[in-house]
Amino acid sequence: MTRFDAGPLPPLEELHHDPQRYPEGVAWLDGQYLPVSQAKVSVLDWGFLHSDATYDTVHVSNGAFFRLDDHIARFRASLDRLRLRLPYDETGLRRILHNCVALAGHRNAYVEMLCTRGTSASFSRDPRDADNRLMAFAIPLGSVANEAQMARGLHLAVSDIARIPPQSLDPAIKNYHWLDLVRGLYEAYDRGAENVLLRNIDGDVAEGPGFNVFALVDGTLLTPDTGVLPGITRRTVLEICDEAGLPARAQAVSMKALKGAEEVFITSTAGGVMPVSRIDDEPVGSGRPGPVTARIRERYWAWHKDERFAEPVNYGR
Amino acid sequence: MTRFDAGPLPPLEELHHDPQRYPEGVAWLDGQYLPVSQAKVSVLDWGFLHSDATYDTVHVSNGAFFRLDDHIARFRASLDRLRLRLPYDETGLRRILHNCVALAGHRNAYVEMLCTRGTSASFSRDPRDADNRLMAFAIPLGSVANEAQMARGLHLAVSDIARIPPQSLDPAIKNYHWLDLVRGLYEAYDRGAENVLLRNIDGDVAEGPGFNVFALVDGTLLTPDTGVLPGITRRTVLEICDEAGLPARAQAVSMKALKGAEEVFITSTAGGVMPVSRIDDEPVGSGRPGPVTARIRERYWAWHKDERFAEPVNYGR
Repeated sequence: MTRFDAGPLPPLEELHHDPQRYPEGVAWLDGQYLPVSQAKVSVLDWGFLHSDATYDTVHVSNGAFFRLDDHIARFRASLDRLRLRLPYDETGLRRILHNCVALAGHRNAYVEMLCTRGTSASFSRDPRDADNRLMAFAIPLGSVANEAQMARGLHLAVSDIARIPPQSLDPAIKNYHWLDLVRGLYEAYDRGAENVLLRNIDGDVAEGPGFNVFALVDGTLLTPDTGVLPGITRRTVLEICDEAGLPARAQAVSMKALKGAEEVFITSTAGGVMPVSRIDDEPVGSGRPGPVTARIRERYWAWHKDERFAEPVNYGR
Repeated sequence: MTRFDAGPLPPLEELHHDPQRYPEGVAWLDGQYLPVSQAKVSVLDWGFLHSDATYDTVHVSNGAFFRLDDHIARFRASLDRLRLRLPYDETGLRRILHNCVALAGHRNAYVEMLCTRGTSASFSRDPRDADNRLMAFAIPLGSVANEAQMARGLHLAVSDIARIPPQSLDPAIKNYHWLDLVRGLYEAYDRGAENVLLRNIDGDVAEGPGFNVFALVDGTLLTPDTGVLPGITRRTVLEICDEAGLPARAQAVSMKALKGAEEVFITSTAGGVMPVSRIDDEPVGSGRPGPVTARIRERYWAWHKDERFAEPVNYGR
């Protein structure tokens, strides 16, 4: 029988001292507003142990939320599909999000609301025994593409890893199941690219880590229609096209269509509309961000001042 | 423009007061041994936000680890595949696990080692910028099946939700991507069952939440070979069969084979070998736990006293 000598018994301490550093921001959990460094989930929470959670992210730009109604509606739809229940109505949730941003003081913020299955004192394996938990936080707004990438376009690689299919997980439930995307990212880095696009299980283009993709093919903007998150920025782009009379639609996008596209861009709450100039080490169209991308990007930011979508934060209450 | 009245600005507090109750146990993180209630992950850790983490669970039975070598080896293989790096060798990791169990004092424990991608102070979207983090904890040993279910056999339902396929995520990397399993569980509860089996993307039998499955078909024990976690209990059963001269192999298991099986059981570190007596509201074989299942279960627990596999915990150092 193996005998392992673990040495003298170490002391059992009472409180964790976290050596990590976190971005500046404010979180809400269990009725408290706290520095974001305090926003933690137990390792026994199903939200961690089983990634049994859903979330939504909305951004604040120049002191105003963008399309907060739509993000809250999508979050509530995800909660329903996962049978997560919260004692907060839309107004209660909205108040929490506004307060996180106001207390953080960020004029440009990345704001996340999330709900985990929770845990039970008995560590039951039945998810119905768990107390569902809401959390929210506001931190400085980041972007998928940095300034240099915005100017010259992102360099992407397309991975052979398939995005988790709808047969396994409905992508309309915004979820944290990202290992396919993370492994795709490392593969892209190995190939000298800056970010990755995954395909769906049928081999067509799907999405990347936290973003949707658009390709201008024969004058029509196409974006994948199945196996992808129905992004709010994606929807905004489709609405902008509709208003501007630019042909655009959601449909299957083959690798051939992507590689032959005149322009390609990606969309995310974290960065908006971001040009792509190289895919798999080949130039996209002219190899530079194109005029349609620029026009949509301009409209996207113009819509942030539109009273249909902007909801100002009252910081100085 | 929408104006939302969030009311007076609430106070920003310093420390979180966690109202949750947790099982008794001891965790290790950041060099400290702590009550398991202190074992938390930041919501900004990629391990939570992207379920970018891996883990392994091993059990302690009557004061001894079972097959700890094998669990540590599998954990280290998972770390490598995800390119997670830790400053602990096998001995360092083993010491941490022994100490968690000894400090917790549990003679029967569920012990988990896990590693998250971590986070960076800048909240970078590049996983290579994150500091990988190890954690471990020991809590009381649970079981997928309770005592009544062990005696009369579990009642399972087979879901139409496909287990996340290997094309998306290599199941040999033990992972927390469980929303397919959790949604399957709710579906099973709706149908009056106690637990669920998912199929793989080709429609054959795969696995359930934290367990593998075996079916005795025409005198041979079959267990699915693709798209499933290569469980250590599953491997133990195959080795027991080999030693006892019972025909057993890993291969595709069709729904037809499962439904016509003479016996069915499931295997997990949490509970060992557990009989199944009903599937989709139909009896399995005689409708009672069968003799082959009983024989393997008996051998499984006998192997816990085998010096090849048992590693005692020294509690009273």
